[in-house]
Amino acid sequence: MAVARGDEPADLVLAGGRVLSVFTKEWLEVDVAIQDGHVVGLGRYEGRERMDVEGAYLTPGFIDAHMHIESSKLTVDEFARAVLAHGTTAVIADPHEIANVLGADGIHWLLDCCADLPLDVYVMASSCVPASRFESPRRPFSTGDIESLLRRHRTIGVAEMMNFPGVIAGDPAEVAKLTTGLTSHVDGHAPGVRGAALNAYIAAGIGSDHEATTYEEALEKRRLGMWVMLREASIARNLRDLLPLVKRYGTERCMFCTDDREPSFIVEEGHINQMVRVAVEDGISPEDAVVMATINPASYHRLWHLGAIAPGYQADILVLDDLSSFIPRHVLKRGAEPRFTKLEVPEWVRQTMHLAPVTAESFRIPAGPRRIRVIRVIPSQLLTGADLVEPAVREGALVADRGRDLVKIAVLERHHATGRVGLGFATNVGLKRGAFASTVAHDAHNVVVLGVEDADMAACACRLAEIGGGIVVAE
Amino acid sequence: MAVARGDEPADLVLAGGRVLSVFTKEWLEVDVAIQDGHVVGLGRYEGRERMDVEGAYLTPGFIDAHMHIESSKLTVDEFARAVLAHGTTAVIADPHEIANVLGADGIHWLLDCCADLPLDVYVMASSCVPASRFESPRRPFSTGDIESLLRRHRTIGVAEMMNFPGVIAGDPAEVAKLTTGLTSHVDGHAPGVRGAALNAYIAAGIGSDHEATTYEEALEKRRLGMWVMLREASIARNLRDLLPLVKRYGTERCMFCTDDREPSFIVEEGHINQMVRVAVEDGISPEDAVVMATINPASYHRLWHLGAIAPGYQADILVLDDLSSFIPRHVLKRGAEPRFTKLEVPEWVRQTMHLAPVTAESFRIPAGPRRIRVIRVIPSQLLTGADLVEPAVREGALVADRGRDLVKIAVLERHHATGRVGLGFATNVGLKRGAFASTVAHDAHNVVVLGVEDADMAACACRLAEIGGGIVVAE
Repeated sequence: MAVARGDEPADLVLAGGRVLSVFTKEWLEVDVAIQDGHVVGLGRYEGRERMDVEGAYLTPGFIDAHMHIESSKLTVDEFARAVLAHGTTAVIADPHEIANVLGADGIHWLLDCCADLPLDVYVMASSCVPASRFESPRRPFSTGDIESLLRRHRTIGVAEMMNFPGVIAGDPAEVAKLTTGLTSHVDGHAPGVRGAALNAYIAAGIGSDHEATTYEEALEKRRLGMWVMLREASIARNLRDLLPLVKRYGTERCMFCTDDREPSFIVEEGHINQMVRVAVEDGISPEDAVVMATINPASYHRLWHLGAIAPGYQADILVLDDLSSFIPRHVLKRGAEPRFTKLEVPEWVRQTMHLAPVTAESFRIPAGPRRIRVIRVIPSQLLTGADLVEPAVREGALVADRGRDLVKIAVLERHHATGRVGLGFATNVGLKRGAFASTVAHDAHNVVVLGVEDADMAACACRLAEIGGGIVVAE
Repeated sequence: MAVARGDEPADLVLAGGRVLSVFTKEWLEVDVAIQDGHVVGLGRYEGRERMDVEGAYLTPGFIDAHMHIESSKLTVDEFARAVLAHGTTAVIADPHEIANVLGADGIHWLLDCCADLPLDVYVMASSCVPASRFESPRRPFSTGDIESLLRRHRTIGVAEMMNFPGVIAGDPAEVAKLTTGLTSHVDGHAPGVRGAALNAYIAAGIGSDHEATTYEEALEKRRLGMWVMLREASIARNLRDLLPLVKRYGTERCMFCTDDREPSFIVEEGHINQMVRVAVEDGISPEDAVVMATINPASYHRLWHLGAIAPGYQADILVLDDLSSFIPRHVLKRGAEPRFTKLEVPEWVRQTMHLAPVTAESFRIPAGPRRIRVIRVIPSQLLTGADLVEPAVREGALVADRGRDLVKIAVLERHHATGRVGLGFATNVGLKRGAFASTVAHDAHNVVVLGVEDADMAACACRLAEIGGGIVVAE
């Protein structure tokens, strides 16, 4: 208080900048006094340290309203380094990939890791592990697992409720996850859900959605009270399609999120700052764009100390040279340059592959059916189609057919070495020879193998077991 | 969920109205399906009961963001009856008048009383009992009292922190009230506080203010992140002066409150609906005005189930014939006509007068000083002036002087019959003969007596003791 009153010098004063008030969407020509990692005053202040930001624009650090750190393929310390450079100072993460592979232990470990990071990582407790009853994670999450997570300080709610059919149908197991009594803050996930079904989903207590891909869908959701997360993911770039909602109805209840973003996207185009940039390019005012990246996600997520440069707020501040590139000259995290730490990843987190022995024989599909259903891959889309084709047969078994771009696909259970294998065919993959395998396989992250030859497929799977998971190609 | 899905009929359907979405500020032509006191769907619905509201406007019930029920001079059940008729369905009350007279017990009793009311009464724990160290309440509130209140369900934060000099100075006793760890939600009270002092007050964790009387003061507070409560109290009608803030910067962080409103004001002009009406008269759009009376106070006070007509929200709904008078045709509280109950006020709440014996002699001021300081009353204002005058003397004592409009004023401690009496003189009161006494005397509510004759003053005080407090005149 003495610093705010001007009776004692601040730890740091940012002098000469134009400071965005997210509350009035104005640029104030004031100093920012920072003490103990928090903003304590806007006005004229003295400080033990003084940073000249003459002519620069100062905005709050950007907040990602919904995302999965695992999609960056980085450990959280490296992820922090990558996104802080782009001005993201807080993320609200649903660690459901970790949850599928490591159980609730994995999320508790992640929370422990994040305590000392220069990035604020808040967690929404993963609600749908497995994502559907057709998947085999390490173990399914119970309501109790969710409760154990909600008891922790940095867990602020329940993550995207992907089982929207279950919620809408009133499935007691899903309703139980929404009625723990520990939180009323629940993210949604309701692609294409409209009308009465949408009313039912919202009435169950769902507060947000990030799956709208059209203006009309987003508008219907907002009218009914949902907070709309405008998404710009690697394979779901919805921002430009949804910005008309902001232009017509203002920024209220709108915010930005990245959901799943590949590392190349982050490095080449940025993170939330890329969304602010695109919004401004598209005709949104810089002030409105920043509001959707700062105070709006903070308000929605009830993070009262984030999202503004004002007394009492955490001093997460971007120093910007312009209002078009949104590449920060400086990023202040809790009032200082971010100090990065190197995360030691323990053995139990690194070694999650428990795969039963695999040979070429594991992939054999005996001949018999005259027509088979084949997965048709649609480039750059999550959804797949289905074809009915005549299989290729060799030595009494169904095999790949290069000529028709028909490859074999397999999923191998790899959490408990059960030896369970699912087999089928896919088309429009583009694989001409050899095989490809990955343990990056949403959401349960078993081993997915695609191949032309069973022996190559087996080689890939065996190699994955040796190296503890990842991506392998063979021929 | 079955009702929301349209698979089962609702308890009640409001059909044919125009329903305000406070999220897009649009009027939607939809039915409202209500089940178990909550809105479950907007669309086309069937119901066991159907209310035709063809052509009417449906808005959420109005919310008073800050007020003192005691100022209405009504018990809370009668207050509920009075304001529900005007469309107020929830109030956020600071019961600090009760607190001064009955201690924390009084607030716990009030909370108990409100459990079955058709009005939602949320309480902010009174932070300043006494209001200043010059006052004598029944007993002073400790941080522990505030904690005991914060543990209760309907207590949602800490009430207006009136000791702003203490907070700004960093007084540990005041800071302790803000740092119980039980809530981060604290109302402010900072008349005329600006600049560095205001920064310090906000940095301490104060979230709102209702004392701004000018556009400039309100704007400064909003820029720094405060929620601005536009006030229209009986003796502080600030609304029209502050509406330019809304016109220039929009409705964000603005809301309505009545603070202290006399019963005549409520009966003759209304309650929050009077503010909505005045705002619309003054050029604010009806949608914006309603937003400041509904979703904004609900959001500020973190009452996530109030302030909107949307799935999951409590069905507090006004049926309006027009968007100018804002006198509701129907008020639905939790989906039904309000059902009023009669409150039984127990003896310990009714009998709070503990006054030591009073005679004319109690008011005697021995002659001596040649000049005395006199309180100058300023009509219709809270503030008073001070004059220095020569006293009138009779039989060795200072006495009133009709010719100079100089009357005697006394405050008699009445909580613990200590016999403590404070004596002085006031001018510009207008009292020509006899005496006037009241236990309605903010904030400690001791007996205040004004009079021309000591004997009449004594008669008033004695009568107040007999009738358990109130207002008495005598000659």
